[in-house]
Amino acid sequence: MHVIADLCLVPLGVGVSVSRYIAECERILSAAGLKIELHAYGTNIEGEWDDMFQAIQQCHKKIHAMGAPRISTTLKFGTRTDRAQTMADKIKSVQEKLSKS
Amino acid sequence: MHVIADLCLVPLGVGVSVSRYIAECERILSAAGLKIELHAYGTNIEGEWDDMFQAIQQCHKKIHAMGAPRISTTLKFGTRTDRAQTMADKIKSVQEKLSKS
Amino acid sequence: MHVIADLCLVPLGVGVSVSRYIAECERILSAAGLKIELHAYGTNIEGEWDDMFQAIQQCHKKIHAMGAPRISTTLKFGTRTDRAQTMADKIKSVQEKLSKS
Amino acid sequence: MHVIADLCLVPLGVGVSVSRYIAECERILSAAGLKIELHAYGTNIEGEWDDMFQAIQQCHKKIHAMGAPRISTTLKFGTRTDRAQTMADKIKSVQEKLSKS
Repeated sequence: MHVIADLCLVPLGVGVSVSRYIAECERILSAAGLKIELHAYGTNIEGEWDDMFQAIQQCHKKIHAMGAPRISTTLKFGTRTDRAQTMADKIKSVQEKLSKS
Repeated sequence: MHVIADLCLVPLGVGVSVSRYIAECERILSAAGLKIELHAYGTNIEGEWDDMFQAIQQCHKKIHAMGAPRISTTLKFGTRTDRAQTMADKIKSVQEKLSKS
Repeated sequence: MHVIADLCLVPLGVGVSVSRYIAECERILSAAGLKIELHAYGTNIEGEWDDMFQAIQQCHKKIHAMGAPRISTTLKFGTRTDRAQTMADKIKSVQEKLSKS
Repeated sequence: MHVIADLCLVPLGVGVSVSRYIAECERILSAAGLKIELHAYGTNIEGEWDDMFQAIQQCHKKIHAMGAPRISTTLKFGTRTDRAQTMADKIKSVQEKLSKS
């Protein structure tokens, strides 16, 4: 099953600077062959269900191994059976409506 | 890996009444041996990582099979390595602070 | 505008135990006259738009004042114009479907 | 209070194509003077608390007025008192860690 997701992972108990944990997770997602796009409040991910959730589990394991005792993650994910759709399609669809006055 | 999660599944393209899809998902989560607690904006789930994410995948498959062409899910999930914690522990912890003036 | 919401507030930079911050926020929401229901991964809130978002802003201010330098919040909220619906209605609606074999 | 947020608005009861509703909301956020950045699963928003939440309320009102009887929104938002931070800062911070082998 094809999935488009948005991952926002928050490590707790390691202070306020969390970017090095996020960077490590980005590496794991990329290495898993997933299409990713970092934004200011998370990361868009596109790929197959099993690959994606296995990679996200690896992120949790890695971030715990880096010393974060607690992680609170918010994940949005969408699936559809009516048609194939990519992350780029979703953005293009809104932008087309915006370009019309 | 032990996980406490909060699942909010929104089927699109099936009108405004979505409770029968949610009920079906509750059945799947229960049948998977997960501890669940329905609330007004989702379902708390407690269990092992693989069981939980496999059950959530089944929910998406089932809801598509019931006729929903599109599903947008929001999932929060937390893991911790510092200590074991249940859903009941989390609630009790806040309630204890509330009972102190 | 009537709103049913689910608030999950995560203070960063204060260690792994965050329940005392959550308890303080519960007090603010209650004092604002909102209907609230604590669960294992957040708090359901029901009330009028302005009351709710003003109270949530107070929560952020209070938790910063308590010493948390950073807060990351996930809020789900729903509005509907087709009919009035309470938190209790939403739960009942799913439970009725569950009770039918 | 300065806020960085991520808004994902899901209209229900209007079929599976929701981009024209999202586009309308983008217009409202922009017109409110907020900095916005569309991505594949939502929109990053940066600005002052009151401006942001007032604009989001306008989005709900507008989308209901366009014919959507129900809206389910997921909003993540962060505030911090330790230092000023922009959306661009957050992305740069992760990218710097990624550029180091």
